[in-house]
Amino acid sequence: MTAQAPSREPRQDRSRATRLRLLEAAIDCLASAGWAGTTVSVVAERAGVSRGAAQHHFPTREGLVTAAVEYGVEVRMREMRDRVAAMPGGRLTALEVVTVLGEMYTSPLFRAALHLWVAAASDERLCALLLPLEAKVGREAHRLTVQALGADESEPGVRETVQATLELIRGLGLADILTDDSARRTRILTQWARTLDSVLGPAR
Amino acid sequence: MTAQAPSREPRQDRSRATRLRLLEAAIDCLASAGWAGTTVSVVAERAGVSRGAAQHHFPTREGLVTAAVEYGVEVRMREMRDRVAAMPGGRLTALEVVTVLGEMYTSPLFRAALHLWVAAASDERLCALLLPLEAKVGREAHRLTVQALGADESEPGVRETVQATLELIRGLGLADILTDDSARRTRILTQWARTLDSVLGPAR
Repeated sequence: MTAQAPSREPRQDRSRATRLRLLEAAIDCLASAGWAGTTVSVVAERAGVSRGAAQHHFPTREGLVTAAVEYGVEVRMREMRDRVAAMPGGRLTALEVVTVLGEMYTSPLFRAALHLWVAAASDERLCALLLPLEAKVGREAHRLTVQALGADESEPGVRETVQATLELIRGLGLADILTDDSARRTRILTQWARTLDSVLGPAR
Repeated sequence: MTAQAPSREPRQDRSRATRLRLLEAAIDCLASAGWAGTTVSVVAERAGVSRGAAQHHFPTREGLVTAAVEYGVEVRMREMRDRVAAMPGGRLTALEVVTVLGEMYTSPLFRAALHLWVAAASDERLCALLLPLEAKVGREAHRLTVQALGADESEPGVRETVQATLELIRGLGLADILTDDSARRTRILTQWARTLDSVLGPAR
């Protein structure tokens, strides 16, 4: 350690903490106010960070929101990975998997991402930033679901059934944005877990 | 027929044609420019209708877009009903059902509806207008899918499996908004149709 370290470390910590506060505020802001209501200034105010500091970290709102969704997805995926790793045999039951995914896709993070994706459909610059993130999130969610289910993708139809599971849950996320769809969602996911058990059964 | 009829009828026809042009232009406009880019004036220009005439039919953009999505859904549902009615036995194969639904949920109409639903998540007035439409479309899509599949909802799990099918297709609609997802969608739906045949099989 040099003599400078004590003063530099706290500054780096403060900078990292500021960045995290901005990312979390951006997710909340997108989820509640949508893309049109999410600017660097609004997010800075919500995070309790000066506008100058916010713009130092994130010069554009496109950069801020993309980083926010990427960060949020990483946190949720890590939580799910840890949960899977902590289970005996390193996997969950089909019902546990669809329940965890169902919670993830009805969270403020999903709402935030949904606002962004739909805005990107008529905004080329935002679309170009989101496409690599969409591909990365899709791959990671698929890999994690296969692992959690203990699914054998070398069996015919298993890969498509896992993809269908994620699409079904994405659809349920969308079904929840205007009304509380939780009771219906629980019934659908309970039945789907039974079907998954019967389709994936022999391989597990 | 009274002497007035010849002059009144064309006026009514013209008014109806104007209304339809506005509804169709509103769907196109929402699908390509999103909610923020869809005003009565913009839609009127796209439809080749004067702003005054457009505002006579639709005083607010909320009213215009809600009527447009309702109209679009009615047209698509009627097409599907006719298609089902024309089939021997009055139903389609599972693969035909999911293929038709997959086309419906990746059309400009779905994109238009998606923009509206997401905008309504942070707009109470729009949300209040859309909720009755969401309930109506949900019921009708469900009823039509049950009928087309020849599914027996008195069997345990069948209702939830039909609901899961519609949610899967809604998820696939969302997956298609930034990239062409058609090849992957075809593989997923082909496998889903096999699963449906096995789950619904004995009752059909």
